[in-house]
Amino acid sequence: MTREKLMNVQEFQRSLGESGLDAVVAVSQPNVFYTSGAYILTQVSIPDRLAMTVLPASGDDALLVCNIEESLARQESWIDDVRSYVEFAEAPMHLLGDVLKEKGLAQGRVGIEARRLGAGYYQELSEALPKASLEACDWLFDHVRSLKTEGEIQRFGEAGRATERAILEAFGQAKAGDTERDLLRTIKENVALYGATDVVFGILGVADQSYVPHPPARERRIEPGDLVRVDFGGSWECYGSDVARMAVVGEPSGVQAETYKKVREVERKAIEFMGPGVRACDVFNCVVESYAKFGIEYPGPHCGHGFGFETHEAPMLHPYNEEELRPNMLMCIEPVHFSEEVGGYQVEDLVLITEEGSEILTNYGDAEELFVIQ
Amino acid sequence: MTREKLMNVQEFQRSLGESGLDAVVAVSQPNVFYTSGAYILTQVSIPDRLAMTVLPASGDDALLVCNIEESLARQESWIDDVRSYVEFAEAPMHLLGDVLKEKGLAQGRVGIEARRLGAGYYQELSEALPKASLEACDWLFDHVRSLKTEGEIQRFGEAGRATERAILEAFGQAKAGDTERDLLRTIKENVALYGATDVVFGILGVADQSYVPHPPARERRIEPGDLVRVDFGGSWECYGSDVARMAVVGEPSGVQAETYKKVREVERKAIEFMGPGVRACDVFNCVVESYAKFGIEYPGPHCGHGFGFETHEAPMLHPYNEEELRPNMLMCIEPVHFSEEVGGYQVEDLVLITEEGSEILTNYGDAEELFVIQ
Repeated sequence: MTREKLMNVQEFQRSLGESGLDAVVAVSQPNVFYTSGAYILTQVSIPDRLAMTVLPASGDDALLVCNIEESLARQESWIDDVRSYVEFAEAPMHLLGDVLKEKGLAQGRVGIEARRLGAGYYQELSEALPKASLEACDWLFDHVRSLKTEGEIQRFGEAGRATERAILEAFGQAKAGDTERDLLRTIKENVALYGATDVVFGILGVADQSYVPHPPARERRIEPGDLVRVDFGGSWECYGSDVARMAVVGEPSGVQAETYKKVREVERKAIEFMGPGVRACDVFNCVVESYAKFGIEYPGPHCGHGFGFETHEAPMLHPYNEEELRPNMLMCIEPVHFSEEVGGYQVEDLVLITEEGSEILTNYGDAEELFVIQ
Repeated sequence: MTREKLMNVQEFQRSLGESGLDAVVAVSQPNVFYTSGAYILTQVSIPDRLAMTVLPASGDDALLVCNIEESLARQESWIDDVRSYVEFAEAPMHLLGDVLKEKGLAQGRVGIEARRLGAGYYQELSEALPKASLEACDWLFDHVRSLKTEGEIQRFGEAGRATERAILEAFGQAKAGDTERDLLRTIKENVALYGATDVVFGILGVADQSYVPHPPARERRIEPGDLVRVDFGGSWECYGSDVARMAVVGEPSGVQAETYKKVREVERKAIEFMGPGVRACDVFNCVVESYAKFGIEYPGPHCGHGFGFETHEAPMLHPYNEEELRPNMLMCIEPVHFSEEVGGYQVEDLVLITEEGSEILTNYGDAEELFVIQ
């Protein structure tokens, strides 16, 4: 992995310079990966095994990991200065304090991911660096990561299309009488066939669960009349996806066909509306207005999100976000319609903001009508 | 899911009583699940969409979720008092503050998961409850969760055996010339066949990567002489697994066969050594001594860990942990031997601490010798 393929280095340096911070420290798995190239899976599965990237405004970066992960870090990262601590014997925050002091930042302004670093660890760091000024810098990572590199646009686009294909083909392979879990398993097998290395989430909302946002798939058999909502995220190494498609078992009822058409129309209108300079909140308002024309109240709280190394990234498309869309943002748009009466409807696509407007990257099928499972 | 099947209610209430805390608040996904029965996957995939359980020493529990997750929470939790906040419009910490005030705890001693709650959120909570005393209570959840219920022992045991079977059968299905990813995919397909709903981690360390702790599987083809180390975690709904097994492609070399035998012997000795009243550090020392007899230095930092809703749980088997093992603890034992010269060796089993000693739950195969892939 090269630094330039993964990370928007120019925007990072510009933002760090503008912030006036002397350094920023990444602690979350996606930000450590983004700023180092080392994909350390135990950061998620063993959350106390902290890994961190120290990124000074001037001087060399350092990657701090548990010694168990040192060989991986050296293999994967472009950062030469890899430091390690021995788990249980040494406190990761003491190592971080020492590295920051060594870089002359004992009294510096140091940006920390305050939303992600546990309060207990933050406290330890404050004690290790009593004269430093620790400041939340989540916003900086959010901002830089929202402006995708060419490498990200290509890989996330491929991941999205493969996911879409896997879902649509699974709809084609499914039949009435299969269990919900059978269908979910087929989708998982299909993404694996198209190269996915992992499944991040696989949501299957069927029939009376179609309008539950994130229900577990059941042993229940799908039967004629069932609405099938799939919201799926696979990953191709570190590049994930988030795509939603829908089907109905047997011929759709009039209400099902019409409701689906409305939901998809609202989604397409929002996509057409998106482009550089358009505010996130206005995309949300566009969805609210489109639904209002159908007499449907859109409850929110959002209608989509930036997409990247995390499922929800900045900019979030919610009513209070005045941030403007910019070229090279990758957006997932998903103005869902969930109702106990008609069921849960969701079409979700990956959209690139371009200089001219927007471009749908998940264009394997068109999803114009509800897929019919025979 | 019943509360008694999932949660060691008696030990929780005893520990909470002894702690003198007026309430504890769970914020991490495993602890919210453990104390509420609601398995909210977005707590991991969308980490700012906080969910929390408020557990007062006296009075009723409350479950706090984003309104998107409210239907799921009501469906899955045994807690009747479900409160929700609207994402982006309302701050989750304000809702938490209000609920704690409503329960008369504005000036109370409130336990917080300080390792897991982000420092920024902790700060918001401090401001919402300026007169309360917020204290770290991670230890309480660690302790209670270490003493498993009958339901946990049964389900984690089943998950472990199914994982072991999936790996061993994949070894039987594999052949020289397959890629590393083929082999990993077969294991994943096998666990799905045996009912796994997800893959938590799938580590395949082959040949020159066998001694890298958590490498990514490659497109490289496996060939005679390759050492194959698999460390795999699936999940059966919320019940996970963590099992390691090894194979060699073609007949093992003398060094491979002997090294494997030593590693497995060290593991078995540690299992025999484990039992109620044995200190975690002494299990570690037992491993160090067993390896020393073979002239091998065991570097640590641990040789195993409690296992449950998280991969690494208390008690960790490391040299500084003087906690005694107790009946109904579930332990993963994995005294690995990683060396650039001979490769990476790992056998990992799930072990139940009983009144009399210990019992291996991953007993589908015996792993006495390296599995030979033809």
